[in-house]
Amino acid sequence: MPALAMPECRSGYATILPRDYYTSAEIFEIELERVFAQQWILLGHIAQVPHIGDYFVQQFARESILIVRESNDKINGFYNVCRHRGHRLCASAHGHARRFVCPYHHWSYGTDGSLKTVPGCSDGEHLDYTDWGLKPVRLEVFHGFIFGWLSAGDAPSLALKFATAAAEFEKMELERLKEVHRETYEINANWKTLLENYLECYHCRGSHPELCVSMDLAAMYAGTDSWQDPYFVGATPLKQSMKTASLDGMLVSRPLGAYAALSEVPSGVGVGIGVVPTLSRVIVHVDHCVSHALRPIDVGRVGWETRWYVSEDAQEGRDYNLARLIAVWDATNKEDIALCEGAYQGVLSRSFTPGPLDPKRESAITVALRTYLAMMKSA
Amino acid sequence: MPALAMPECRSGYATILPRDYYTSAEIFEIELERVFAQQWILLGHIAQVPHIGDYFVQQFARESILIVRESNDKINGFYNVCRHRGHRLCASAHGHARRFVCPYHHWSYGTDGSLKTVPGCSDGEHLDYTDWGLKPVRLEVFHGFIFGWLSAGDAPSLALKFATAAAEFEKMELERLKEVHRETYEINANWKTLLENYLECYHCRGSHPELCVSMDLAAMYAGTDSWQDPYFVGATPLKQSMKTASLDGMLVSRPLGAYAALSEVPSGVGVGIGVVPTLSRVIVHVDHCVSHALRPIDVGRVGWETRWYVSEDAQEGRDYNLARLIAVWDATNKEDIALCEGAYQGVLSRSFTPGPLDPKRESAITVALRTYLAMMKSA
Amino acid sequence: MPALAMPECRSGYATILPRDYYTSAEIFEIELERVFAQQWILLGHIAQVPHIGDYFVQQFARESILIVRESNDKINGFYNVCRHRGHRLCASAHGHARRFVCPYHHWSYGTDGSLKTVPGCSDGEHLDYTDWGLKPVRLEVFHGFIFGWLSAGDAPSLALKFATAAAEFEKMELERLKEVHRETYEINANWKTLLENYLECYHCRGSHPELCVSMDLAAMYAGTDSWQDPYFVGATPLKQSMKTASLDGMLVSRPLGAYAALSEVPSGVGVGIGVVPTLSRVIVHVDHCVSHALRPIDVGRVGWETRWYVSEDAQEGRDYNLARLIAVWDATNKEDIALCEGAYQGVLSRSFTPGPLDPKRESAITVALRTYLAMMKSA
Repeated sequence: MPALAMPECRSGYATILPRDYYTSAEIFEIELERVFAQQWILLGHIAQVPHIGDYFVQQFARESILIVRESNDKINGFYNVCRHRGHRLCASAHGHARRFVCPYHHWSYGTDGSLKTVPGCSDGEHLDYTDWGLKPVRLEVFHGFIFGWLSAGDAPSLALKFATAAAEFEKMELERLKEVHRETYEINANWKTLLENYLECYHCRGSHPELCVSMDLAAMYAGTDSWQDPYFVGATPLKQSMKTASLDGMLVSRPLGAYAALSEVPSGVGVGIGVVPTLSRVIVHVDHCVSHALRPIDVGRVGWETRWYVSEDAQEGRDYNLARLIAVWDATNKEDIALCEGAYQGVLSRSFTPGPLDPKRESAITVALRTYLAMMKSA
Repeated sequence: MPALAMPECRSGYATILPRDYYTSAEIFEIELERVFAQQWILLGHIAQVPHIGDYFVQQFARESILIVRESNDKINGFYNVCRHRGHRLCASAHGHARRFVCPYHHWSYGTDGSLKTVPGCSDGEHLDYTDWGLKPVRLEVFHGFIFGWLSAGDAPSLALKFATAAAEFEKMELERLKEVHRETYEINANWKTLLENYLECYHCRGSHPELCVSMDLAAMYAGTDSWQDPYFVGATPLKQSMKTASLDGMLVSRPLGAYAALSEVPSGVGVGIGVVPTLSRVIVHVDHCVSHALRPIDVGRVGWETRWYVSEDAQEGRDYNLARLIAVWDATNKEDIALCEGAYQGVLSRSFTPGPLDPKRESAITVALRTYLAMMKSA
Repeated sequence: MPALAMPECRSGYATILPRDYYTSAEIFEIELERVFAQQWILLGHIAQVPHIGDYFVQQFARESILIVRESNDKINGFYNVCRHRGHRLCASAHGHARRFVCPYHHWSYGTDGSLKTVPGCSDGEHLDYTDWGLKPVRLEVFHGFIFGWLSAGDAPSLALKFATAAAEFEKMELERLKEVHRETYEINANWKTLLENYLECYHCRGSHPELCVSMDLAAMYAGTDSWQDPYFVGATPLKQSMKTASLDGMLVSRPLGAYAALSEVPSGVGVGIGVVPTLSRVIVHVDHCVSHALRPIDVGRVGWETRWYVSEDAQEGRDYNLARLIAVWDATNKEDIALCEGAYQGVLSRSFTPGPLDPKRESAITVALRTYLAMMKSA
């Protein structure tokens, strides 16, 4: 592994990382442990598990994670792995169950993860059932969004980290969203190339015409420049006249939460949260919400999952048109994928040396990579 | 490589191996040398080479092995590799030849492996032909079945190891079989996950309805529990009323060998041999024979080859129906493949720790893995 | 890495290299640095860039190389990688440009490689433009053929190395060729297996009927035996009666250069140059020219690119027929690919040990591998 200091180029300005960080399969394996298992990752939304016993399975970084509602107040996360011989416990992507029965030797588990039955072996006979419950994935639900933390160590509270977003999120009633579309893109690039792309808008003017209709570019530069923490707050800033992020700045669905009661919705509303370097992101405007989540695959391949949410009361046709709803981010994502893949091609060149980052427009990259390097240092 | 001791879990019971053994490409490379080249592997049957000069080529673990009949009494095995520049010597899967001529520079070899001609270089001119014969693969033919041993070291005699199966095999006249069907399955799992699956019948009741028609499950548990040696003897035990392993317990072909002369064939007949950890297996019932052979591909992929044999005198339509003949094991194989792939998914999880093996129903796994670890220790 | 000495077998004759050299992904990575970046490689011909601003992009060993004509007298080579974040600078395979603008953040460069503009950052503001020009690939044009050298170290002059070919090349006016066909084959073999195949004609009699129509085999043996240098001169030698290398020895296009003025073209004309171990090759007969260039892909895969050239004045239908023109080398290439893939299969065997090379017919292999080993030793 290269030296773990934030590199600078001859001119004294920061750069991205040395090439090995983007090309070494060995470093990617370390990242799975020290980065992706040591930071919150966005897994879903409570709308996926409304009733007791409802569950869904989310893939992340080669892991299969089972999220199940145990009670009205409690949602649990588990590795979807039987404790006996490792068989995938739950094969369905979502469903309803009071018991999860492994198809291999029929060990069964409750929605709290406890081992319930082992065929041919009662509790205490060969083993204590209490020793062999499902391995937990820690969850925190923040205004309806379900975040997970894969390792056993301490995790900071998202409620504290995102305290400044709480008032606006409450007003928007984000627990009462419904997901109406999901895209999972796969990108031939290292995940940090995608992270870097997401954290600067220097490329936006030339590459993202759809986003630039409603986005205030100068405010966006200032916005990314303010992302000085692994947990940042803020939406894509809108131009003053724009009601939402859309191809014309007009609403694309019915207003969320308290905004639905107003005679006229205000312009320029937006709030959001983001986590780096794992890159989970929620952006909410007055009428809809978009979440992004990075999904690591291997050293040269990364997934990018975007979900679109509207008010749970909204009806397609009447309140929103799906094509209009997803137009901005689906186009923007595709543009970014091409840029990431093009940039990664050059990073792969043996001639590659990182160039100077613009101290204003690309500063969030430097902050995120510093966080990343600090995580990689901690054994 | 992880420490080479048989792991135990907290409860004091044995488990399968630590995760690295199933996921490390480096360990797989060592296994090719220390396991698959240091144990007998099933390559075929003498029915494939009835006449002098008959040959066939069998792939195994990235190797191509040429098996050729030199005389009525002698069958030879060679690496299918020209000694000059390494070109694949024989391209056909089977055929008849007195000389094998390399297509690259036309070096030629006899059926005894000796170098016969080198174009432009007579024997002794630049090289002594005797130095450059084909590299041998040791063979032992056990009641018609051809086993190979890839490395040069000592190999135990199968005739001795399987002495207790000899009388029954002789009665069944296994030299007089013909292969009537072959399936080669590919499985997305480490080969040891397949080995473990094969060595226990704890999963059979819930997963193998076709096999459970004729199989005596309690006897099977006892059977696997008795597999305390790398060379074990025994067939799938049949229920008392069952003539053979079939979907209804009735014969699926004409009786083998001496059984053909009886007015009524007895029920419950079965004999077989098995080799671990390379997992070659022959199971014979009164009317047909099945062989299984594990074919390693890479750390996360393994082949599983099953062949069905009947008496050489049997005719399709009159004496056997192919669909009925293969029904039990083709179905069972497909069920096991799904289980192996499901189990391997969990073994790949960073959260995976091996669980406790049932001391009665999964004991053969422990024995086989101990053999495996002993082989891996020997440098 | 195995010991870096040229191996000999027991008989005292040279062999090819130990197996690891052909199978180790780690050694392949070292080769990219110490072999392919430290020797001339054939990239193209000046006919691809006739006018100022004309450019083309050539892929080689995971690199994308931009070749652009800066002036009537100057052709430049650059890594096709933006100095800012590494984005592929030029996406087209060929075209015409005065400026190259990176699609990511719109940094722009001149045809001399200099950085011209950085949006939002004038020269000297955050960085000195002179520090951030494109990284050069050294070029030498030899009688129209463009060779490149990827690393920054000293490179010998091809004009000096190939001095003995100059008179004939001048007579043939190779600057005035046009490329009329190109094939890029991909071969499942290590690149050195292809190199070894190319450097001996011991296999030709049995494998290359099309080539053997016009080729003088005895002279070819003598020819390869004389390739005692990384830079060798000589064409495929023709039989005395043959005008050119074709399926009948008759011309396949109008005579090149000064030969066009003769009332009757002479028989047996041929000249050529070759570079090892990177294996770039140009062969010219009286009426057409063929170039070959090895394109490394990974340890077990290599590209082989052949281009056919005729006089720039020749017209298809009138002066040449494409099928006749390419017949000999397209057939020969396909025959060699099968041989290389067959040989590599055996090299992959754990049983493989290299056999004795014929001291006359395979001597050029020994010379090339010695050059290779010397390059691998230099850190």
